[in-house]
Amino acid sequence: GSGRFGIVYDSSRDAAGQSKTKIERRMTVNIDGTGATDTGLEFGGRIRLRSDEGDTSGAVGSANIWMGNDMFRITVGNTDGALVNRIAYFDGTVGLTGLHDADNSFNIGTFQSLLNTYSSRGNAGDVVRLDYNVGGFGLSVSTDSTGDHLSNGSEDAIAASYNFGDWTVAAGYAKNANNATTAAGELDMWSLSAGGQIADFAVNVNYSDLENVGSKAVLSGSYAFDATTVTAFVAHTDEDSFGSAGIGATGDETEYGIGFTHSLGGAVLAGGISRDYTEETMADLGVRFAF
Amino acid sequence: GSGRFGIVYDSSRDAAGQSKTKIERRMTVNIDGTGATDTGLEFGGRIRLRSDEGDTSGAVGSANIWMGNDMFRITVGNTDGALVNRIAYFDGTVGLTGLHDADNSFNIGTFQSLLNTYSSRGNAGDVVRLDYNVGGFGLSVSTDSTGDHLSNGSEDAIAASYNFGDWTVAAGYAKNANNATTAAGELDMWSLSAGGQIADFAVNVNYSDLENVGSKAVLSGSYAFDATTVTAFVAHTDEDSFGSAGIGATGDETEYGIGFTHSLGGAVLAGGISRDYTEETMADLGVRFAF
Amino acid sequence: GSGRFGIVYDSSRDAAGQSKTKIERRMTVNIDGTGATDTGLEFGGRIRLRSDEGDTSGAVGSANIWMGNDMFRITVGNTDGALVNRIAYFDGTVGLTGLHDADNSFNIGTFQSLLNTYSSRGNAGDVVRLDYNVGGFGLSVSTDSTGDHLSNGSEDAIAASYNFGDWTVAAGYAKNANNATTAAGELDMWSLSAGGQIADFAVNVNYSDLENVGSKAVLSGSYAFDATTVTAFVAHTDEDSFGSAGIGATGDETEYGIGFTHSLGGAVLAGGISRDYTEETMADLGVRFAF
Repeated sequence: GSGRFGIVYDSSRDAAGQSKTKIERRMTVNIDGTGATDTGLEFGGRIRLRSDEGDTSGAVGSANIWMGNDMFRITVGNTDGALVNRIAYFDGTVGLTGLHDADNSFNIGTFQSLLNTYSSRGNAGDVVRLDYNVGGFGLSVSTDSTGDHLSNGSEDAIAASYNFGDWTVAAGYAKNANNATTAAGELDMWSLSAGGQIADFAVNVNYSDLENVGSKAVLSGSYAFDATTVTAFVAHTDEDSFGSAGIGATGDETEYGIGFTHSLGGAVLAGGISRDYTEETMADLGVRFAF
Repeated sequence: GSGRFGIVYDSSRDAAGQSKTKIERRMTVNIDGTGATDTGLEFGGRIRLRSDEGDTSGAVGSANIWMGNDMFRITVGNTDGALVNRIAYFDGTVGLTGLHDADNSFNIGTFQSLLNTYSSRGNAGDVVRLDYNVGGFGLSVSTDSTGDHLSNGSEDAIAASYNFGDWTVAAGYAKNANNATTAAGELDMWSLSAGGQIADFAVNVNYSDLENVGSKAVLSGSYAFDATTVTAFVAHTDEDSFGSAGIGATGDETEYGIGFTHSLGGAVLAGGISRDYTEETMADLGVRFAF
Repeated sequence: GSGRFGIVYDSSRDAAGQSKTKIERRMTVNIDGTGATDTGLEFGGRIRLRSDEGDTSGAVGSANIWMGNDMFRITVGNTDGALVNRIAYFDGTVGLTGLHDADNSFNIGTFQSLLNTYSSRGNAGDVVRLDYNVGGFGLSVSTDSTGDHLSNGSEDAIAASYNFGDWTVAAGYAKNANNATTAAGELDMWSLSAGGQIADFAVNVNYSDLENVGSKAVLSGSYAFDATTVTAFVAHTDEDSFGSAGIGATGDETEYGIGFTHSLGGAVLAGGISRDYTEETMADLGVRFAF
């Protein structure tokens, strides 16, 4: 499991009765079961306990169950879809908490977190994902909405990644990323990422295009020295049509952020600041640790 | 704990927007605490985490607490009543998931799962059960609705079992199996079972009668060879009066099913097919494992 | 974790359809994570699973996260406020379950459990508490309502304790103990306690005053012999004005109780009886154990 606490500033919390700062606090406990058959097929499952500041109780995330070997694996339940599993969306994440998560290219204006992603308190949506890995090559395919005897709109996705030495590239496509129940309402998304390491520098680009809404390109870099790592990103969103991603004004917007982590040996001091497409600022500072 | 996943077919899911198939997925984690006094009295408790396909989060079942020795034991809380604890209702269970659970004689037409039974996501209903075991003889008595300072209708039950060699017989009676709050609304149930082993064959009969509703007799058998076991059952329900169990038409109905398990050494491949009193068909196939 | 079960009598449950007795049952599982940095700073977190009689499912309490050393510690989240952390409110607790909890001086008439206290099923209210300990001296300060970006009324508290040999004294003050959102509605509380040990006898006094409501003084004592401990308390509440604490009649009220625990070596037999300010009687008897 892991824990973290600290302070968060959010400039958007400026209504009457609101406070721009709050105390962040999170605890995560993973309960994992694993085993293997006589023929070497591995299997397991995960269920997570999670508590955050401001909750009225802790939560139990829905589980996922998996089976496979080094080459093939099937994962069923509350798990990432193919894109989130393969694309390097998170290399530019800054701060203790991730702040606006503006460094994830799948967050385009008001369209946030559409893609199937493991949910710590809920259920990603009954995902089934198949992974295939051989050498540096990996392929994932996924669908969702599989557990309810309904023929409703599902997100179907495919993504591939290729690793060569210090560099990894990935690309993927999700049909009906927004789980629309009518064909006319479906929004498809495609994404790609490329990242690698040059001595103490890490660099990543990730790009996503959401049909009829807009596209977002993110460039991020990290520099590690002694026990400290500094990470920064800049992201640019272009709307497909004026206001289609909730930006309007000029139809495009730049987001950016910078953060650091400093190892305390067992725990990590982390902080950062970011600015999102609404031109609001978030900042945080705190400590996180694993146990 | 344990996990399972697979595919389920249900012919009854044929409305517009429905799919007859779904992906089954379950994870169970038991958190058990046990200890003993200096005089050798054992005690303990169980709390269960459970997640299934289609849930919006995992669940925490209510706990049970027990204390006793080889001869006497008291169990308090979320636990089976006397009948479910003693009667061999489940020997004919088929498939990965149990399908219609039509092999349980206490499921009579539309009257399903009335008896106090451990609930993996909820609470059986604040049961208190006393167990007595000596030699091959066992006796259980139970009541429920004990935890709420209310004098509402409780299910009170008594059941006994006797084991001799490869054979076990059991019988029991539950007053107010439906937890009616008025004496006029009470439905009593009695059940019996007999089962045993002949070489690689296992055979079981279980029978239940629900007052004013109907009765159900189930015959099941299993045959084990190498790593495979095949199980089949046939069940016949007779209504006490036309339509009293929701069957009507002829006033009686036959249900049946067949399934198999095949050990993978650490995991089990399981599948089956069954037909219930509504003449609908369910089938499933998948893998389950313990960890 | 721990468990308990037994029987509870409550004379106030005398309405139609009610029963004065119920079966008590509780299971508690603490999931703790701990660690330390290279420089010896310790950190950790706790999340609790809890199930009680009468619940519809088990519960996951919100978590707390802490970091510090022998001298300083910060605890964030679902945790006791400064008063409950320092004042010896609970030395006079009787019975298996605590019964009316009338021995806690912060429970004044109808004003029950206002102070920030760790919640086993919920969240104390996003408390941040700082503890300082040196020699026998300890100081705690706390606030709450820190996790929601709201500037609503918080309970702010300070308390100190001092231990010398077998005796400990403590005092504390909470501003806005009732979390009122307007200054006019705020009720402040102050408390003190003193307790110690004389051979096999333990004695404690604790006193609380809730602004505009009333005050309560509690005297309790315990006597231990062989495997048995007997504890008794008497508490007197005075209203600030007639009916201000919901007592009325004479404007003051005496509460009392007596209980025992008897070690079974691994488990404990416990029982007690108490009378509260409404002149109702509760009694209980049962077993509790840790595992």
